[in-house]
Amino acid sequence: MKNEHNNVPMVVIKRLPRYYRYLGELMKQGVNRISSAALSEKMGVTASQIRQDFNCFGGFGQQGYGYNVPNLYAKIGEILGLNHGHTVIIIGAGNMGRALVNYTKLEKRGFHIIGIFDNNPEKIGTQIKGVTISSDDSLEEFCQNNKVDIAALSLPATGVAHVAQRLVQCGVKGLWNFSYTELAVPEGVAVENVHLSDSLMTLSYKVAKKQ
Amino acid sequence: MKNEHNNVPMVVIKRLPRYYRYLGELMKQGVNRISSAALSEKMGVTASQIRQDFNCFGGFGQQGYGYNVPNLYAKIGEILGLNHGHTVIIIGAGNMGRALVNYTKLEKRGFHIIGIFDNNPEKIGTQIKGVTISSDDSLEEFCQNNKVDIAALSLPATGVAHVAQRLVQCGVKGLWNFSYTELAVPEGVAVENVHLSDSLMTLSYKVAKKQ
Repeated sequence: MKNEHNNVPMVVIKRLPRYYRYLGELMKQGVNRISSAALSEKMGVTASQIRQDFNCFGGFGQQGYGYNVPNLYAKIGEILGLNHGHTVIIIGAGNMGRALVNYTKLEKRGFHIIGIFDNNPEKIGTQIKGVTISSDDSLEEFCQNNKVDIAALSLPATGVAHVAQRLVQCGVKGLWNFSYTELAVPEGVAVENVHLSDSLMTLSYKVAKKQ
Repeated sequence: MKNEHNNVPMVVIKRLPRYYRYLGELMKQGVNRISSAALSEKMGVTASQIRQDFNCFGGFGQQGYGYNVPNLYAKIGEILGLNHGHTVIIIGAGNMGRALVNYTKLEKRGFHIIGIFDNNPEKIGTQIKGVTISSDDSLEEFCQNNKVDIAALSLPATGVAHVAQRLVQCGVKGLWNFSYTELAVPEGVAVENVHLSDSLMTLSYKVAKKQ
């Protein structure tokens, strides 16, 4: 499926998951309709920012009515590609890998963990939440037999580049990279980095600034 | 210490940890001097962006010379508040908490984990990397006896708001929030959220876009 929203700035895209979460909360509370002013107050973003953001996708609101919450939620989910569902494998069954498998929000968002891989013989064959840990060596075979959309890379930094290369050759289109390394991937493969220490350094800045 | 860089846009601040990482790599390789063009190529950011970013802090470069890598590294570290060193406690010794304790990059960046807290009696008294897990109940006492700069919140979402409130009352100035909840904190307290599912949704978007 070709996504038609090709020129939306990444900074807007990065805000969509947050809108999505908030709208999900509103739906849980039975709210069907919200003004951009009320959404703005709830999210701590200006109403004009919200309107601008949504206008990138053709706008979803209606003058004098506001936003239809379930429609907006469904539309943003669609833009984020959440409506297809994604299969995910985890490479590295250390603490971070285990945390990801146990992270229930992933399933709720349509991400299905179908495999976990590690090179530690003591871990191979054991299970986390019903998913068996397989040997790293069987990665190619697994990818031949299963459609893998996304691989989470939660292994030590030294092995990441090589594993990423193997995954790309297997046709995996999305790499969720928890290692400290930035990955070079061919056009057509998407990478999203989670650099925990960057986030902590940003916090350090904010703390220093407040003092 | 008052930080003098109060009007720097957050989007620039967010790029500083990445510069800091790259410059650290360059120093390891013995590189003492780099042009903004070379830094730009290495980081996949335009040279004009780099110059603009650094100009927010008075600029560090010299026409025709480029940047002095160790100076720039030290200066960015100072802006990020890394030169003070920070004490960190971890609330919640689940997989994510354990992953944080074992994340060696934190110590390298000057963040010292001095306490871990959990409410599971089976965990209390055991150690992770030499740090003993204490009972949640002893949080206030611990904070009275130790200067705690930052608390990482890696506990289930239901308990987060209450624990955050207690930490703020204890004088903790920085909350590193891994839960799904957004926290309301008083002026003077900084929060940095790590919303893993937001990052995964962004990846989902990128994957959908490339197809």
